[in-house]
Amino acid sequence: MPVVLALDIGGTKLAAGVVDDAGRVRGRGRVPTPVTDDAEALYEALLACAAAAMRGATVAPYELDGVGVACGGPMRWPEGSVSPLNIPAWRDFPLRRRLAGEFGDRPVLVHNDAVALAVGEHWKGAGAGSAHLLAMTVSTGVGGGLILGGRLHHGASGNGGHVGHLVVEPDGPPCACGGRGCLEAIASGPRTVARALAEGWQPPDPDRADGTALAAAATAGDKVAAASLARSGRAVGRALASCAHLLDLEVAAVSGGLTQSGPLFWEPLHEAFATHARMEFATACRIVPARLGADTGLLGAAAFILLPERYGWTIP
Amino acid sequence: MPVVLALDIGGTKLAAGVVDDAGRVRGRGRVPTPVTDDAEALYEALLACAAAAMRGATVAPYELDGVGVACGGPMRWPEGSVSPLNIPAWRDFPLRRRLAGEFGDRPVLVHNDAVALAVGEHWKGAGAGSAHLLAMTVSTGVGGGLILGGRLHHGASGNGGHVGHLVVEPDGPPCACGGRGCLEAIASGPRTVARALAEGWQPPDPDRADGTALAAAATAGDKVAAASLARSGRAVGRALASCAHLLDLEVAAVSGGLTQSGPLFWEPLHEAFATHARMEFATACRIVPARLGADTGLLGAAAFILLPERYGWTIP
Repeated sequence: MPVVLALDIGGTKLAAGVVDDAGRVRGRGRVPTPVTDDAEALYEALLACAAAAMRGATVAPYELDGVGVACGGPMRWPEGSVSPLNIPAWRDFPLRRRLAGEFGDRPVLVHNDAVALAVGEHWKGAGAGSAHLLAMTVSTGVGGGLILGGRLHHGASGNGGHVGHLVVEPDGPPCACGGRGCLEAIASGPRTVARALAEGWQPPDPDRADGTALAAAATAGDKVAAASLARSGRAVGRALASCAHLLDLEVAAVSGGLTQSGPLFWEPLHEAFATHARMEFATACRIVPARLGADTGLLGAAAFILLPERYGWTIP
Repeated sequence: MPVVLALDIGGTKLAAGVVDDAGRVRGRGRVPTPVTDDAEALYEALLACAAAAMRGATVAPYELDGVGVACGGPMRWPEGSVSPLNIPAWRDFPLRRRLAGEFGDRPVLVHNDAVALAVGEHWKGAGAGSAHLLAMTVSTGVGGGLILGGRLHHGASGNGGHVGHLVVEPDGPPCACGGRGCLEAIASGPRTVARALAEGWQPPDPDRADGTALAAAATAGDKVAAASLARSGRAVGRALASCAHLLDLEVAAVSGGLTQSGPLFWEPLHEAFATHARMEFATACRIVPARLGADTGLLGAAAFILLPERYGWTIP
């Protein structure tokens, strides 16, 4: 049975798993992302994490069919040199080349973590069986990935799926990308919290003014908190209507911190979608929560290698 | 050398061409679309048009490799039963089945005219050589089609490419689709003209208040006319920024009446795109006028048959 090493690299944690072609995670490793500016120390921590997963699965490196990696962007693709926004130690770090050095001549593929989300949800999650899927995360940033015609859509430079930069408010706030009115500039967790604070929300613990606290306040009846959550939900719903029209999607799967806020986020999202998506083919798009939770990155990264026809690519 | 019969069916004209695999139109037929509510009379006019094209090319029906058809939407796809908005005589008219009856066992494929535009521009026009293209038309309506990964993107029900229904102004005017703030509701030719009239534009000939007259007035210095054109251009530029982000496009090709208005349409379009598309991969998307002009529908329809790997599909 084919097994691969899957790595999921984010600003808060490093995760590794040995994954088989049934989608089972047979061994795991996980550590908080070291706070360091030493690129090699970070890389060593990643290798230790990978070793723990292989020990857990009793799989030796020579038994692996390849290594799939989900990493925070931006990156150069398909080369796999990464500069994760939330990991300052790595700037143009040659992650794919280094891992290829460790694991001999097996395939090593590195892609954006939001792309891995889409692949994971298509392989084993909310989009299983569909041909046209958008999966997105509404979290510190707003990212996404696309499966179109049953295959991963990369785009010209591996940046396909950047749903966070659909323009949802033409004269909206500036975005970190340099643009204006992007979905991310309105609906990301930090922007949702900052907007509530600016409009007068008083969190019970000023040191923990985060999405969880905001959702709790909104649920307890705080109108300012609820209004900020609703504006983010509406922005996501509007963006999804645009995506459903442009791509004739079957499923849009939404994950991330804000989606845990309950109906105060989801209802405005569905209402905005219903307002803007009226043609039969667009209303047919199912909008659902993503289903795989914390394993989505590992499963997606594994699928890059395990199902190359659908989710893989070649390195020139 | 393979030759196909290509048909382009619109609200103002019916066109036919015999097209070879070099993209040459070797015979043509063309008539104004009969104003009738008789579905059969319309179909007979189409067949006469096809016969003229075959005579012109001295090609007999048995020499054809197939029939490709571009038709105004909506339609049931891939069945090819059509209900063109601007041709009331045909409602769920079984166009594909009827043509298959005329032309024996050759393949007959029917798709949306905006999809044919994208295919034509990818095969022989502004998108030639690219892997990721959006082609759109800003005309009576606003439509489009997508080539992704070098292949035509159909979507779940053949409706991929509906760029006219991206939401570009959240609280914008109602759209014919039932939604609100769609690109089409702001930037279509009739909406652009109607907005100028509502804001006080006085056309020299009140019976010819159309896009051409509006562009002429704007060019001659009419500020209201120019403002309406600019708002449409900005809306298109904003929608293209969203598409470039979502799909990581190489080329966006824009055609249609309003694109003939010159810099008063194109400059606001490019400015809005530049405001919103700031990341390197998005700014790399080239925005260009479509190149094939009146033949785009015929060439695209021909390519459905001539290049099935890229542009074709199967009828279940």
